[in-house]
Amino acid sequence: MEYRFSNGLRDLKPSAIREIFKSLSDPQIIAFAAGNPAAESFPVKDLSRLSARLFETQAATALQYGTTEGYMPLRKAVESRLQERFGIDSEANELLIVSGGQQGIDLTAKALLNPGDTVIAESPSFIGGLNTFRSYAAKLVGVELTEKGICVEKLEAALKANPQAKLLYTIPTFHNPSGITTDLPTRKAVYELCKRYGVMILEDNPYGELRFAGEDVPTYKSMDTEGIVVYCGSFSKVLSAGMRVGFVSAPKGFVSKMTVAKQGQDVHTNLFFQMLCHAFMTQCDMDAHIDGIRALYRRKCALMLETMDRCFDSRVQYTRPDGGLFLWCTMPEGTDIDGFVKAALAKKVAVVPGVAFAPDPTVPSPCFRVTYATPTEEQIVRGTEILADTMKDFLK
Amino acid sequence: MEYRFSNGLRDLKPSAIREIFKSLSDPQIIAFAAGNPAAESFPVKDLSRLSARLFETQAATALQYGTTEGYMPLRKAVESRLQERFGIDSEANELLIVSGGQQGIDLTAKALLNPGDTVIAESPSFIGGLNTFRSYAAKLVGVELTEKGICVEKLEAALKANPQAKLLYTIPTFHNPSGITTDLPTRKAVYELCKRYGVMILEDNPYGELRFAGEDVPTYKSMDTEGIVVYCGSFSKVLSAGMRVGFVSAPKGFVSKMTVAKQGQDVHTNLFFQMLCHAFMTQCDMDAHIDGIRALYRRKCALMLETMDRCFDSRVQYTRPDGGLFLWCTMPEGTDIDGFVKAALAKKVAVVPGVAFAPDPTVPSPCFRVTYATPTEEQIVRGTEILADTMKDFLK
Repeated sequence: MEYRFSNGLRDLKPSAIREIFKSLSDPQIIAFAAGNPAAESFPVKDLSRLSARLFETQAATALQYGTTEGYMPLRKAVESRLQERFGIDSEANELLIVSGGQQGIDLTAKALLNPGDTVIAESPSFIGGLNTFRSYAAKLVGVELTEKGICVEKLEAALKANPQAKLLYTIPTFHNPSGITTDLPTRKAVYELCKRYGVMILEDNPYGELRFAGEDVPTYKSMDTEGIVVYCGSFSKVLSAGMRVGFVSAPKGFVSKMTVAKQGQDVHTNLFFQMLCHAFMTQCDMDAHIDGIRALYRRKCALMLETMDRCFDSRVQYTRPDGGLFLWCTMPEGTDIDGFVKAALAKKVAVVPGVAFAPDPTVPSPCFRVTYATPTEEQIVRGTEILADTMKDFLK
Repeated sequence: MEYRFSNGLRDLKPSAIREIFKSLSDPQIIAFAAGNPAAESFPVKDLSRLSARLFETQAATALQYGTTEGYMPLRKAVESRLQERFGIDSEANELLIVSGGQQGIDLTAKALLNPGDTVIAESPSFIGGLNTFRSYAAKLVGVELTEKGICVEKLEAALKANPQAKLLYTIPTFHNPSGITTDLPTRKAVYELCKRYGVMILEDNPYGELRFAGEDVPTYKSMDTEGIVVYCGSFSKVLSAGMRVGFVSAPKGFVSKMTVAKQGQDVHTNLFFQMLCHAFMTQCDMDAHIDGIRALYRRKCALMLETMDRCFDSRVQYTRPDGGLFLWCTMPEGTDIDGFVKAALAKKVAVVPGVAFAPDPTVPSPCFRVTYATPTEEQIVRGTEILADTMKDFLK
């Protein structure tokens, strides 16, 4: 039978990153490509102990159906932390537990978008977010990212040119793939523009806890007087990515529609791990644990930057992030990035070509993304040296 | 801000069952309403032991990102079981692990449906399925359910009247809410009709393992020579509902689109619990465990039927299921079911009014659904007696 697929899915291909990820089963590959957090960042011993206790004392609850909104004590604990750490008003907003930050993006799209509606995103942006919007048959409009965040002038031009735009998708802190953090003046200007044009902001903040340099910048959500910001966060980079537990904070009138959509998608998020997250947050020292992850990434990022400073051709530029997992490298305009990525992979170093992150993938990109999170320190040095060496053939 | 919701979500209300479920926090309520499996059906000790071992030996894998398709050893184990138990050809089909059977329904809808496309469903049908189709702005067409399954003549009429129909949604085995199992001649006729009209079949089979009387009837999937059947199954009624692990078997060319859609929804299903399911399937006696659940429901169902036979007014009819979780009661045409359900709840017995399961909720239903799975045996007797007593005021 020839299947009659929906318009949103008909032409959608699997994420290039997920496909690369599958090829990473080769243990010899130095994995600069995946978006995986460091395995050593998961508090295995604590989770194991708390899990045993959960089976002992609350198995009947943890294994049974729960409410779509999520495990109430976890919702409360996350609300408190978001208030304390990110200035998010727990009175004006409601918290929904989701199956990873990715589901927060999907439910926002599902609640808002009809086929053909416009979503504005940074260019480049997170491929998982972009593909979700594509899956709803949305029109994607990319706006250039500068070192201060999304380009405000070009954002305004895009809003003018697309009066039907419904949503701005942004990763303002330790942006994926670039590592850039949007500064405060830019955030204020962006918020005012979205308010003026009646466009909602999806603030995707999976890396917000992972600052290892500089000062926190206020979240969009903390300045949301109009109820136009949907904030997505996640435990993936802090406790475990594989458990798929994230959260959304948004005005009640908006979250309620996301909740209805979530009922239809998976009823609720794995309840056992929701309870485990709650146990960790309340019985362990979350701040000390996160400080440990920050120190780890501070060290790894510095090591990669030192190696790049030492080995990379001076025509290659790269970002110097204050947190998160990613560095973004820009080669001279016109470089055969595809060839470079393939040549690096042949030498067992995997990076992601910039075009994978483009809202408009027909525009060539001279960039590639690397992560320092997954590889060991020895791999960081060796892999970066291999990249520097491979580059030479692609810079004339 | 006044939100501009998508057409699919704008008018969609939370599932009546989920809402009733929330009210069940009152421990005095006799819960005939929820679709929860019996807490005593979860193999807590085995899961606890296997979980401890997983933390000891495979934590780094279990807590990290996995592939969207699911944990390969689990996929293989489920494939084998589906082949053995339900005659599902593991060569012609591919298996996708999903976050509960509900996600299988959602991903099927997402892969196929554009707004306005028609989905045909049994009337009554599972509210979670119906609401998922509604969330994609599909048009729902209900076809009367008889004691042999969906009415074949009316199905053909519906297919003729709706040439744009893309999907038949059916729960052929221990149907929710009715408990009815579609017989083999009906299945054959339905399959032929769908084949002839180019309509896919979504076979939702969360209860298939729970037969406690009679003989297995072949699944639609086992007779699927044309590649038109998407089969959804689940561990929810066998190992744990709260963990949200289910599976889909469908032709490769179809599953690949569902996989892309799943990437956008939650990247993958909780990996720790996927590995736990695999460990249970391979290291414990799955068949013996399921036999235990069958014996439990056989006893509970028989007890409820005995009590109904003894106490219910003879004008009230009810189904006698061969498996699954539900009984469906039909009161005389014109009965004030809403009043009856409220009166029963006031006496601390919760049931679900039939209208909640209607593809077209404007048509009144003289029915209500009860489950024997969740309540204790003492509650089954007392709750059924209370229903019988409450009924008297509503039968003139």
